[in-house]
Amino acid sequence: MLRTLKDHNIETHCPIALIDWTNEEGARFPGAMMCSGVWSTKSSTGLEGCYAVKDTEGVSMRQALLDTGYLGQTPCDYRQNGLESYFELHIEQGPKLETANKKVGVVTAVQGMKWFAVRVSGVEGHSGTTPMDGRSDALVTASRLITAVSETATSTGLGVATVGVISNDTQSQATIPSGVEFIIDVRCSTDKMVDDLCTAIFKSFDEIIQKEGNSTAYKVTRTWGLPESIFHEDCISAVRSAAIEEVGTSQIMDMKSGAGHDAAWTSKVVKTTMIFVPSKDGVSHNPAEYTSPEDCALGAQILLQAVLRYDESVKQGSLL
Amino acid sequence: MLRTLKDHNIETHCPIALIDWTNEEGARFPGAMMCSGVWSTKSSTGLEGCYAVKDTEGVSMRQALLDTGYLGQTPCDYRQNGLESYFELHIEQGPKLETANKKVGVVTAVQGMKWFAVRVSGVEGHSGTTPMDGRSDALVTASRLITAVSETATSTGLGVATVGVISNDTQSQATIPSGVEFIIDVRCSTDKMVDDLCTAIFKSFDEIIQKEGNSTAYKVTRTWGLPESIFHEDCISAVRSAAIEEVGTSQIMDMKSGAGHDAAWTSKVVKTTMIFVPSKDGVSHNPAEYTSPEDCALGAQILLQAVLRYDESVKQGSLL
Repeated sequence: MLRTLKDHNIETHCPIALIDWTNEEGARFPGAMMCSGVWSTKSSTGLEGCYAVKDTEGVSMRQALLDTGYLGQTPCDYRQNGLESYFELHIEQGPKLETANKKVGVVTAVQGMKWFAVRVSGVEGHSGTTPMDGRSDALVTASRLITAVSETATSTGLGVATVGVISNDTQSQATIPSGVEFIIDVRCSTDKMVDDLCTAIFKSFDEIIQKEGNSTAYKVTRTWGLPESIFHEDCISAVRSAAIEEVGTSQIMDMKSGAGHDAAWTSKVVKTTMIFVPSKDGVSHNPAEYTSPEDCALGAQILLQAVLRYDESVKQGSLL
Repeated sequence: MLRTLKDHNIETHCPIALIDWTNEEGARFPGAMMCSGVWSTKSSTGLEGCYAVKDTEGVSMRQALLDTGYLGQTPCDYRQNGLESYFELHIEQGPKLETANKKVGVVTAVQGMKWFAVRVSGVEGHSGTTPMDGRSDALVTASRLITAVSETATSTGLGVATVGVISNDTQSQATIPSGVEFIIDVRCSTDKMVDDLCTAIFKSFDEIIQKEGNSTAYKVTRTWGLPESIFHEDCISAVRSAAIEEVGTSQIMDMKSGAGHDAAWTSKVVKTTMIFVPSKDGVSHNPAEYTSPEDCALGAQILLQAVLRYDESVKQGSLL
């Protein structure tokens, strides 16, 4: 996009910055979207907190930035290094565009998210000598709860809920498990829907525990969350207009992002939006992740046109 | 028991042997009831196979026996070192005696057992972007299968079935699991009931997979088994008579052993039975395991009297 602007000697009204945010994925240093969170000043982990985070080898983020020469002098704070607006292009990381046979997602928001750690406790016993009706099997109860997480998300239609991690205290084939832990990931379009879905899930948990009628119980700890992010209509309409011009209305759909992005943090302090292009089979973070060169080019083209349209509106003073 | 015989100068018709079978639990060297299995010649793992088994440090069983001075010269084979009969005293390791408020279990058999490893496969996906109706979540399907293992054992009344071990390929909170493994432990009074319960469990699995209607699937591998063992009426009646004399009919119940014991292997080649005394809360293999000194003494007393009664019958040639 920048090369094309240069090749065509196009000078924009607003200067354009290309940002490579540090540690978006949180792969080496735990904590996703770290740099944009610091820059926005809205993340609970500030600059010093992020500097102190260590990788599995014990190297701090600050040391790693020093070692690679990327620590720099520029303040990471939107109040000192602000933007007029922020546009981000990304693959969808989900199957919705592909399923709907659309080429471009006009992203209007990022889902709200909450994570919970659940611990189910039961009573250990010998698998051969404890009658079925005298058991408090933590894994059987956990299995019912995990099934309920999925069924509640599906039946309420409020959003998505997933258990990706499970661990079992006892590791003996001949022992009735006494303790199981798992993590629930809940995501919905709005924070209210996140809360409603969580309430419905934990209500179903209480019903299951009551129905078990044995000594199994559960305990929930909230571990992480990201509030919903609403993108700005000025940016969204620039993307929509550019996309319509490139591929026509029938190839476009409005959508919310299921995954977290740096745009979620920038949207807290400057006008923001995102553009999505299709992900093959909805797969990402996996060697099978694939978006065709044509779809990548289309995304870049729409980013270019959207930014030019937006820039023209700023110049004319015609924005909201 | 032996001390009491000596203290009272009692000379039995049959010589009495006290046997400390090597590696009954299989705690250091994988494979339970190893020595009695070799002695009976009926276990699929013979003497050389057992010698070759290694602990987690790589030390072979043979080396460990050499190191401790317990390798010995006596052949471990019932055909060269036989017994006329075999009596074993044990704690119940289950709650049945305590629940029924009985003091002595007259053990008539050891349950048949089978273990299976189950692998559930699904499709990995991003927890935030994959709609609920587009998922093939291996952990949700595994949860339904684990619930079905418990429910099928309960509803058929055929025996007990337990999942004690579970592992999940993916260990990311934001990923839909693509592979889950667990182990099923099935135990019933008879081998036929074991097979019937397994058939019912896997039938329920097929129904669940069909109902899922997505890409999840399961694969089963049989990992271990112990055929049912029927104890001998001559030994059982000696125990029953001794128990009635000690505590009266109301304190006794016939029962089958849910756990495996060396008696399961000896019963394949010589007349065998067992005596059970109560386990507090049915707990065993755990620091909370407890049987009162009085119950232990009662068990030893019944063992003594049963062996004397049996010995007298052998002397009189009055057995079956």
